[in-house]
Amino acid sequence: MLADTVRDLTQMLGDQALITDPDDQAPFLHEWRDRYVGKAAAVVQPRTVDEVCRVLRFANDNGVPVVPQGGNTGLVGGQTPDQSGNAILLSLARLNRVREVDTVGGVITVDAGVVLQTLQDEADKADRLFPLSLGAEGSCMIGGNLSTNAGGTGVLAYGNTRDLVLGLEVALPDGRLWNGLSKLRKDNTGYDLKHLFIGAEGTLGVITGASLKLFPKPKGMRTAMIGITSPHEALKLFSLMQEVAGPALTAFEIMPRIAIDFLTRNMDGVRDPLEGEHAWYVLAEISSGRGEGDAEALLMQSMETSFEDGLVEDAVIAQSLDQANMFWAMRHGLSEAQKPEGGSIKHDVSVPVAAVADFLDEAIAAVVEMVPGCRPVPFGHLGDGNIHFNVSQPEGADRAAFLANYETMNERVHAITTRYGGSISAEHGIGQAKRDLLPGVKDAVALALMRTLKDAIDPKGIMNPGKVLADSR
Amino acid sequence: MLADTVRDLTQMLGDQALITDPDDQAPFLHEWRDRYVGKAAAVVQPRTVDEVCRVLRFANDNGVPVVPQGGNTGLVGGQTPDQSGNAILLSLARLNRVREVDTVGGVITVDAGVVLQTLQDEADKADRLFPLSLGAEGSCMIGGNLSTNAGGTGVLAYGNTRDLVLGLEVALPDGRLWNGLSKLRKDNTGYDLKHLFIGAEGTLGVITGASLKLFPKPKGMRTAMIGITSPHEALKLFSLMQEVAGPALTAFEIMPRIAIDFLTRNMDGVRDPLEGEHAWYVLAEISSGRGEGDAEALLMQSMETSFEDGLVEDAVIAQSLDQANMFWAMRHGLSEAQKPEGGSIKHDVSVPVAAVADFLDEAIAAVVEMVPGCRPVPFGHLGDGNIHFNVSQPEGADRAAFLANYETMNERVHAITTRYGGSISAEHGIGQAKRDLLPGVKDAVALALMRTLKDAIDPKGIMNPGKVLADSR
Repeated sequence: MLADTVRDLTQMLGDQALITDPDDQAPFLHEWRDRYVGKAAAVVQPRTVDEVCRVLRFANDNGVPVVPQGGNTGLVGGQTPDQSGNAILLSLARLNRVREVDTVGGVITVDAGVVLQTLQDEADKADRLFPLSLGAEGSCMIGGNLSTNAGGTGVLAYGNTRDLVLGLEVALPDGRLWNGLSKLRKDNTGYDLKHLFIGAEGTLGVITGASLKLFPKPKGMRTAMIGITSPHEALKLFSLMQEVAGPALTAFEIMPRIAIDFLTRNMDGVRDPLEGEHAWYVLAEISSGRGEGDAEALLMQSMETSFEDGLVEDAVIAQSLDQANMFWAMRHGLSEAQKPEGGSIKHDVSVPVAAVADFLDEAIAAVVEMVPGCRPVPFGHLGDGNIHFNVSQPEGADRAAFLANYETMNERVHAITTRYGGSISAEHGIGQAKRDLLPGVKDAVALALMRTLKDAIDPKGIMNPGKVLADSR
Repeated sequence: MLADTVRDLTQMLGDQALITDPDDQAPFLHEWRDRYVGKAAAVVQPRTVDEVCRVLRFANDNGVPVVPQGGNTGLVGGQTPDQSGNAILLSLARLNRVREVDTVGGVITVDAGVVLQTLQDEADKADRLFPLSLGAEGSCMIGGNLSTNAGGTGVLAYGNTRDLVLGLEVALPDGRLWNGLSKLRKDNTGYDLKHLFIGAEGTLGVITGASLKLFPKPKGMRTAMIGITSPHEALKLFSLMQEVAGPALTAFEIMPRIAIDFLTRNMDGVRDPLEGEHAWYVLAEISSGRGEGDAEALLMQSMETSFEDGLVEDAVIAQSLDQANMFWAMRHGLSEAQKPEGGSIKHDVSVPVAAVADFLDEAIAAVVEMVPGCRPVPFGHLGDGNIHFNVSQPEGADRAAFLANYETMNERVHAITTRYGGSISAEHGIGQAKRDLLPGVKDAVALALMRTLKDAIDPKGIMNPGKVLADSR
């Protein structure tokens, strides 16, 4: 059966398109943290949209599970097959054409396998901005970003990935191609299909292409690192900066003092950004469409008002692009800087923006009560209500003993999150990691609707089985 | 059978909830232009979400068609039952509570039957902006706006109705209630269900409530009426103004000279806004988050640059709120001002923004060739690529003879629209008016997918049968 699959697909696509050697397959089957490892009958690398459709038709006819994959940077195991070795891993990496850049209309149309950074660069060359930005941008692919509705640091001003999409091209499980590429800002001709596939993590079909919004490039940017006493003040500062800068406030990230300690200790070239120590830090960014002077003025005005209001203890405005980049490197380096500190129990949660500070108070108290001495390092996108609630082990404690609390701590934090009307996966998705948590937190009718949609669009259940929803076969 | 329906529903909801007298039913069954007139076994007016669910469960069990209705202001007959009299008309008008206004988080949660203007007023009272705005706002209801993904004049800066939604509450055809109300800016826990119901025109379920985004109120606004030679220059002016004002450019509407003639002739109190006559007019609006002076400065800078570039022939900036309101009254009064000029053949189309001018050239030439002497009055949201391509009859011609060209002219204009990658319904939806046009213009796979979704979510086909998709029973 597996041999048949490989033989038939080789016949269809040529042997250059298939990888069957386990060593050569390894980069596709090992998730980068080695948290998820899978097996596959073959790694299949189509070169055209038509080949993607033919592979799916074959898989549907023969009941072969298909696991689509972009840059293999996902954090919830959505891109990794199970251990059976029955599935084919469908890599979109060779579908990597930038199809069109429409500067006047502000639309870029790309294949799914285009690396996010390439897409950003293409926009930049056209003097436009593609605002999706996240740590993995050098290797993640836009098809994966779309399939997981990726978040990142640009959400505050530009929205989630789904908000950047004008049109989509999707190969359906039975091999039909839906051409929903569009450059239209307004179109009310029937159900909105694109939003069904965005964020579906490859369980309803394979995104092969997309038309995406481009934005005017900011003409001036200013970044500040701000010392503050608590998330409650951070929330007030956020309101104040939105009031002053409006849509020009393009980032508002928060981190606790311990994050700065971890960074100065574990990351080369990082110095304490402010003179004294502060309980919390905010990384704020202003992007002006008018110019450097305007960005500077907006930031200065925000800072002056917040000093007067006693909201801010200290602040430093980056004096060069290098310094701004260093602030961002600190923010992006946080996960890495946590590693030398031992085991870490992680959560990717969101709550309503107005509830972030209360949530943090409560969740921090809860995990410290649970494991005395543990070191909470909650950081993230306060402006979106999205906190990466990471908890490092107590200093000198046994790593394994601490990590034994993983599930119970997740349960506790997720319960608090849910009580605030929050989400247990703000931006990483469900994949295999959180699949079995969903029934505990999600509206039962929503889950039933998801199952109805899955069964209707992928009746044979070949698309990324066992991800998001349990495999029903 | 019909008598049974009325009896059972009366038993369930009390006789205050049902209207069976034809005269009392008339306001619900006649669309305001009398273009669509339907019959109903009863007009049912539930007072609670639970009652909506019970009505649907009953209808689903008994195969009774259900036509949901908000303010009865739709333009494509989506809210009007057929002539059989088998359906019940489900009015959401009594579900009219504003459930919560969250000023800090910027979220308003409302029942489906809240009138749009009430919603705007509630936001205003909280010193916030709910930016959806359209001609019918005094009577249309938010549930209908959501079900049709209404457009309006705020789309350029704030997006379509779907972009304003954080969460949704929907009664499913079988009476289950999906509680998808949410205040979260980020949530990646499974398929995005809300976008499926938004714009589905009541064919998949009944939206009973929604949580919607609020925005900071602009602190300064300036409106200008600008004389210009052609849509090609208008497109350049649009780029220039976006470059200068960025997201502060909140409206960019276009109309031809003949629209001004119709307005001065047929609308009380309207004077020619500029001294000379110009082939085309642009109504541009700047909304600054900073203040009046800033709005003024942005508009002045745009105008100075565009005069220097020779883009603009003449322009007047409204010197008072009254004058600004008059410019907007002209824009909103255009449909009304067309009426005394005789029959009008209408199109609600959109094309990619960069193609608007070419589209207009071609479509105007086509209709004039078709009916010599006809008077094209294409106006609308150039910034969204959305043009209300209306064509008034030749002066003194026979109304009926002109209107006999309705379908063939629609066909011709839609064919041009489609060739530019456009949409035949940019903001009004499909309803019954354009249902049979869809197969001619829509991707066949998209249509098939829509049918799959309809059959999966509403297997008995009770929800608004014959709207958007043909009734398959």
